[in-house]
Amino acid sequence: MRMRYKPWAEDYLKKEPNIVDLDGSHAGQISDWFDNDQPIYIEIGSGMGQFITTLAAQHPEINFISMEREKSVMVKVLDKVLDQGLTNIKLICNDAIELNEYFKDEEISRIYLNFSDPWPKKRHTKRRLTYHTYLALYKQVLKKDGELHFKTDNRGLFAYSLESMSQFGMYFTKINLNLHQEDVETNIETEYERKFSDKGSRIYRMEAKFH
Amino acid sequence: MRMRYKPWAEDYLKKEPNIVDLDGSHAGQISDWFDNDQPIYIEIGSGMGQFITTLAAQHPEINFISMEREKSVMVKVLDKVLDQGLTNIKLICNDAIELNEYFKDEEISRIYLNFSDPWPKKRHTKRRLTYHTYLALYKQVLKKDGELHFKTDNRGLFAYSLESMSQFGMYFTKINLNLHQEDVETNIETEYERKFSDKGSRIYRMEAKFH
Repeated sequence: MRMRYKPWAEDYLKKEPNIVDLDGSHAGQISDWFDNDQPIYIEIGSGMGQFITTLAAQHPEINFISMEREKSVMVKVLDKVLDQGLTNIKLICNDAIELNEYFKDEEISRIYLNFSDPWPKKRHTKRRLTYHTYLALYKQVLKKDGELHFKTDNRGLFAYSLESMSQFGMYFTKINLNLHQEDVETNIETEYERKFSDKGSRIYRMEAKFH
Repeated sequence: MRMRYKPWAEDYLKKEPNIVDLDGSHAGQISDWFDNDQPIYIEIGSGMGQFITTLAAQHPEINFISMEREKSVMVKVLDKVLDQGLTNIKLICNDAIELNEYFKDEEISRIYLNFSDPWPKKRHTKRRLTYHTYLALYKQVLKKDGELHFKTDNRGLFAYSLESMSQFGMYFTKINLNLHQEDVETNIETEYERKFSDKGSRIYRMEAKFH
């Protein structure tokens, strides 16, 4: 999600230390931070936050984490959390590669990847969030029966992800090759998704687990 | 492949006993029938035969089997084999469920499924050629490193197959979610494929192996 750089973002985020972790101070103690033992679902790369805040409002019985490395983007997520008075969501400002610094092994029930950067060039393959080094991290922090939910409008990234994930030993429990023609009722749209599906782009979606 | 019933088909096929097996007389001895030790590639459901005969003409170093249960359809395949004078292709008239009656364990190097019947109704799931009972047969007759190549214009069947195959422990080495935009040079079209892609349908394709 490209967004204008906001020099004031860090100060703004610092005002909500009970919602935003900017410096890793809650690393390894995320369940304690929530102060209850509800299941944890995380979204890696939350864009403007519409998806995860909508989900959090619908599911007070779940704890949500938005992991996003761009402070200028995270401001938008925080605003939605504050506006809606959500208490079951926390924001972690860091890169996905640090996942296992924040979460204990098998602590998470579900991971969402929505419209991740496709990194289409072959030399950037390692940066895709479904590259095997990331899958290994997800496997580590997910519970045995945990799920990865992935949505994209990028055909190349989706095909790559099906290959990479199956080669890593994951399997698919649900696949939509044209989501908006198949499942409009339960789908929660992201801002990006609305924009691109309005232009006629197909949206691809999968739910996956580790063997 | 729907085709007019031809009452004369059986007699016609019987005239070429060195190319067509109508009664299982070569069951368990397919490599002997070819009288050489070239790799064996089979196509299950060959329609009018354009795909497998084109492939056989391009690859004299491979032995090909067309497995097709409809005699009226097989006549079309036989005509193409005779017209082109192909010596590296045999025709087996039987259902895919009989695969392991014809082939020894790990005898086959590659299986092609092209535009298989999608059986879209849920109660017909067991008839889809990527249902797990068929996958178990493929695993049995394929060599350890053998490949399954699958092509369809049916979105539902493709999504189902990705789920079913990954759940069975298969992985994907190549996936095309819009084949005719991605790989036109090496693709060999079937008669059905030409007709439907001309109408604007997407063609989906995968190459898969067993873990």
